[in-house]
Amino acid sequence: MTTISDVARLAEVSVATVSRYLNESGYVGAKSRQSIETAIKELNYVPSEVARSLSTKQSDIIGLIIPDIKNPFFPELARAVEDTAFEYGYTVILCNSDENPTKEKHYLQKLTKKYVAGIILTTILEQESHWKDVKLPIVALDRPIDSDVPTVTTNNQKGAKLATDFLIACGATNLLCISGPEAFVSSQSRVEGFQTASRKKNITTHIIESAYDFDIAEKIIYDYLKNNPSVDGIFACSDASAIGALKAAHRLGIRVPEDMQIVGFDGIQVGNVVTPSLTTVAQNIYQLGQTAAKLLIKQIEGQKLTNESICIDPELIIRETTRKERFE
Amino acid sequence: MTTISDVARLAEVSVATVSRYLNESGYVGAKSRQSIETAIKELNYVPSEVARSLSTKQSDIIGLIIPDIKNPFFPELARAVEDTAFEYGYTVILCNSDENPTKEKHYLQKLTKKYVAGIILTTILEQESHWKDVKLPIVALDRPIDSDVPTVTTNNQKGAKLATDFLIACGATNLLCISGPEAFVSSQSRVEGFQTASRKKNITTHIIESAYDFDIAEKIIYDYLKNNPSVDGIFACSDASAIGALKAAHRLGIRVPEDMQIVGFDGIQVGNVVTPSLTTVAQNIYQLGQTAAKLLIKQIEGQKLTNESICIDPELIIRETTRKERFE
Repeated sequence: MTTISDVARLAEVSVATVSRYLNESGYVGAKSRQSIETAIKELNYVPSEVARSLSTKQSDIIGLIIPDIKNPFFPELARAVEDTAFEYGYTVILCNSDENPTKEKHYLQKLTKKYVAGIILTTILEQESHWKDVKLPIVALDRPIDSDVPTVTTNNQKGAKLATDFLIACGATNLLCISGPEAFVSSQSRVEGFQTASRKKNITTHIIESAYDFDIAEKIIYDYLKNNPSVDGIFACSDASAIGALKAAHRLGIRVPEDMQIVGFDGIQVGNVVTPSLTTVAQNIYQLGQTAAKLLIKQIEGQKLTNESICIDPELIIRETTRKERFE
Repeated sequence: MTTISDVARLAEVSVATVSRYLNESGYVGAKSRQSIETAIKELNYVPSEVARSLSTKQSDIIGLIIPDIKNPFFPELARAVEDTAFEYGYTVILCNSDENPTKEKHYLQKLTKKYVAGIILTTILEQESHWKDVKLPIVALDRPIDSDVPTVTTNNQKGAKLATDFLIACGATNLLCISGPEAFVSSQSRVEGFQTASRKKNITTHIIESAYDFDIAEKIIYDYLKNNPSVDGIFACSDASAIGALKAAHRLGIRVPEDMQIVGFDGIQVGNVVTPSLTTVAQNIYQLGQTAAKLLIKQIEGQKLTNESICIDPELIIRETTRKERFE
């Protein structure tokens, strides 16, 4: 007897997609729809009740837990997750954890108990392991949580090295690194990249910490630069901090990039809007979200993951807060 | 016999809140929790199975349909909706419609068929009435859709009038208004406010249209200012267009605010980050989202709405793209 799996195989789509088509229970792209219809005709397939109910038993909701959608990094990430989910017939529940363990636990429990097929989690809570109780497919995004959990991150160390090498190539010799909060694994990797790149190069280095927030960073950097006027290059572990640095420099009458150069990290839209526009290590934010959603859906639909952890290369975007590179 | 309604009445919370408490099925604030516990003791209430299942029958998901979470206006709005939902024990499904009628319809159908208790809709699709088939509670946010549907908007006309009056008071006599796309009711109201304020004041006015997008606006305004160098004041119907105007002026060597003043509309965070920082009509974005979520939850929980349409006043925030007001 012909089964739904035969249809899926011939149509070169997943069983879940055929099921969505049969049940009209979710979006099926025009191309897949046509392949399925052709396959059904060719195989003379008559759907059984069991096949018809396959998808209705299973949830088609994905839970996305992020710290705060207002942080300019996350809208694009959320958008990529939702676009990908939409393409595969899933919808997305958005949860803001505020990096608050209680809120994060509440959402994990609620999503798990009730209605989701899988969870994408962006968390800083390394020490915690409450997600271990989650019996659903799970993907860690942006910040790794455990070697057992499939993870999608940016190659943070490589990106930081790119930025630092570039500042040095552009003539900076007294570098200030603005790290993120200590708990952020991604920030730790960026600081390591900074240290690797600046070591043995006759460069003076300083490291200070700031939240990824325009105003907080501006204040911290203003105070630091006031007491350390010889700093001529800043590598900030986030664009928010880099823009804070730009405002601090502006207030102190330090010209950017003439007196001091700045490179950020993230690639958020606002970096292109400030004056001078920000040189930055751009994460491929959309690809991060898309890859995480695909990894999760693969797990939900019972496919084997061949590559459990994906590290995406960032790219240096040269704008106006750095000088011309010196080719020595 | 004591009922769940008696407990709710004595505790001064909704029946749904008591139900959530009894079923441990959602968040109940500390204060409500205490009131409920006191009421249960006072009334010697023993929950019946019917009462216990009240909430489990009902969905606690809210659907939020917006054009695009990447548009800087929407993260804060989505955040406010989610915060409020969380407070009342609901979670939020996020859907980006891209102002695309097919995608919007798909989401409306999908959400309605499957699992949501109500929908918050931000749409420009006035002509369409596919939401009329939705048999669930619905609230229109930011853009009204129908007099029957409870609506939460900003007082756009008043805001535009504030901005235009202020530009004139600061000495501008040749005003360019950058409207949004024609289909946006909110943009129409802002243009009306601009016209009302500039009429009979011996002011030259121009109106051009632009998408609410930094880059598109910059290009359109650059071309327009090149051919109309006597413009000395811009009222932009969005901060995105206002920032595009700022970049266009910068490229043309027009000094802001000395040669030309700019006032935006929205109050997004990036307006405070650009140099010079943007004078703008700030919508109370958080209050918009919060109010819409509360209106929706009231409907879901069967409460009567006393005020079906709520119009929230915006506020003029004076920063650096305008000169000092002349007191004539």
